[in-house]
Amino acid sequence: MENRFRLGAMLAQVAPLRHSPAGIPVLEVVLTHESWQHENGARYLAKFTLPAKIIGTDATAWQHRQGTRVRVGGFLVQSGRNNPRPMLHIQDIQEDKVE
Amino acid sequence: MENRFRLGAMLAQVAPLRHSPAGIPVLEVVLTHESWQHENGARYLAKFTLPAKIIGTDATAWQHRQGTRVRVGGFLVQSGRNNPRPMLHIQDIQEDKVE
Repeated sequence: MENRFRLGAMLAQVAPLRHSPAGIPVLEVVLTHESWQHENGARYLAKFTLPAKIIGTDATAWQHRQGTRVRVGGFLVQSGRNNPRPMLHIQDIQEDKVE
Repeated sequence: MENRFRLGAMLAQVAPLRHSPAGIPVLEVVLTHESWQHENGARYLAKFTLPAKIIGTDATAWQHRQGTRVRVGGFLVQSGRNNPRPMLHIQDIQEDKVE
């Protein structure tokens, strides 16, 4: 089943890097997004905040990049067993060099 | 700024059709999703529930389709001014006829 999300966002918050019990680097971040979208013939201001997680080598690479504009891709999951709020598991991330 | 989400899901809940003040049909639904994803060389069970909204002719067409497997595309927004939880604005929807 498809579960694919592509987003331009601000890396608004970056938590300290931690490691899983198996020693894998994990970085928890918060993304903020604001864009104009088109819906039913009208413009719509899409704004939201989304918790996200980076696992593996990218976690180490992005630990000091708070405040960077990024383009990310990944899949949504539930934040926690008792927290239905969606979280993005980032699978690819690059800086969004907007001139 | 990119904000594109494609998802296979179950149309788990469908609220009664309503109309905006301008008379546009609006359908509020809840999507549930469960799929195996690959992350950092391992399998990950992605499960979540996501509120969503359909605006316009599709809202009327899907008002009686609770329990249908669907494939949707759209963009994420914040559910409400004081509700940071993301909601999907569905821009295209079709039945997912899985044999």
